[in-house]
Amino acid sequence: MKIDVLTLFPEMFNGVFGTSILGKAQEKGIVELAAINFRAYANNKHNTVDDYPYGGGGGMVLKPEPMFAAVEDLVKDAGEKPRIVLMCPQGERFTQRKAEELSSAEHLIFVCGHYEGYDERIREHLVTDELSIGDYVLTGGELPAMVVIDAVVRLLPGVLGNETSAVTDSFSTGLLEYPHYTRPASFRGMDVPEVLISGHHGRIDAWRREQSLLRTLQRRPDLLEQAELSAKERSWLEEQRRLSEQERKEQCGPAADDGGTT
Amino acid sequence: MKIDVLTLFPEMFNGVFGTSILGKAQEKGIVELAAINFRAYANNKHNTVDDYPYGGGGGMVLKPEPMFAAVEDLVKDAGEKPRIVLMCPQGERFTQRKAEELSSAEHLIFVCGHYEGYDERIREHLVTDELSIGDYVLTGGELPAMVVIDAVVRLLPGVLGNETSAVTDSFSTGLLEYPHYTRPASFRGMDVPEVLISGHHGRIDAWRREQSLLRTLQRRPDLLEQAELSAKERSWLEEQRRLSEQERKEQCGPAADDGGTT
Repeated sequence: MKIDVLTLFPEMFNGVFGTSILGKAQEKGIVELAAINFRAYANNKHNTVDDYPYGGGGGMVLKPEPMFAAVEDLVKDAGEKPRIVLMCPQGERFTQRKAEELSSAEHLIFVCGHYEGYDERIREHLVTDELSIGDYVLTGGELPAMVVIDAVVRLLPGVLGNETSAVTDSFSTGLLEYPHYTRPASFRGMDVPEVLISGHHGRIDAWRREQSLLRTLQRRPDLLEQAELSAKERSWLEEQRRLSEQERKEQCGPAADDGGTT
Repeated sequence: MKIDVLTLFPEMFNGVFGTSILGKAQEKGIVELAAINFRAYANNKHNTVDDYPYGGGGGMVLKPEPMFAAVEDLVKDAGEKPRIVLMCPQGERFTQRKAEELSSAEHLIFVCGHYEGYDERIREHLVTDELSIGDYVLTGGELPAMVVIDAVVRLLPGVLGNETSAVTDSFSTGLLEYPHYTRPASFRGMDVPEVLISGHHGRIDAWRREQSLLRTLQRRPDLLEQAELSAKERSWLEEQRRLSEQERKEQCGPAADDGGTT
């Protein structure tokens, strides 16, 4: 896979592209990563890439010409038409499913603005995907591009060793992970749960599944709707929900509303 | 503000901490950023920071001692108790509201795992906040920490100039941004909308508001519930929704379901 990032701050990518999974994937020849300054494609003597917005208002807007020229230069030798991904707050929410989809592409081009807005013609006529990594305001598309690239590259065959792919697998259940413990068994009076030291694999598996279910119920009940659960697990979870609801009401005291169901 | 990041890959932060808003905020003395390798706090001769999980299974788990020792070393000279933020998929979803909350802290410490899980005692007894930037699998907490740090630091007084704070303001309406255009007015036959060149500010403002509403309706209707809209805008949006629904049905042909309301 080939991944190009068009940015005004290519130096931001040095540390990230050279380290850990991304560094190793490049060494193994699985992916080729490049951060390219699209200012090189400015077609005016001052190398300007942005300009004032039509209609007035604050902020600068990235001009269409340099971005079109940069993408066309990257695309001209490409076989399959690349996916051209714009990182922006208005984009489709990035998810693990999207990472899987992008991981089957031969060539990805990320378009990153910084401070500025984009000329709408870039959005409408140049890019194939618009992605947002979440509802928060960031200074540019560079960090979001790194996030998407990390999520995608780690899915490519041969990138992760066995020790790490196991971590990924725990997400494929659709539940949050159970708690992990390692040595020492006792640290400043904080002890590892007995069951994990029991050596009884059946009990360990059951405890882990239960913890996974409980944690998902407490923190991300929305995930339970999609998760693959047995009928027994569903009724156990219903019971847990009822118990914690009851506990909450008892803590609130007799004055609290105790009528009706939720 | 002081921000420390505990990581096994401090070199990942070089490019990001030195560039753009984060670089400038440090130059201005508004924030002090440091990426610290917590392997320096390993208390064994091989500098080991992780170990096999109790109860078996794949993956390694970060040991509690080095992380506790590293945080305590950072905290010992602190005035106000720092917020200690663990980046993990099970954490609370990071939002702009959370960025605003964190921006009032004096000292933030980010705890980043990489590949491994965390010993549960770190989660339960050391950290004050657990954050997730979204539902996707990343290799470590480093990129999420950078995302949170960028979102927080740009909110600190004096960090953004006027030209960029305007961009932020457009989010405070709770709607997606309207389209931006800059020169040239015509690029390869793609023209800037007439209204933006009209010089009529009332019409420009109305067009932008309408575009903002329409785009939010099309891409993020969930945001409309929270947005501050006039009664007139709400009924206009209702009409747009009805029209696009009707259009959709006409495209589907007479065989499509046309009964009932949604």
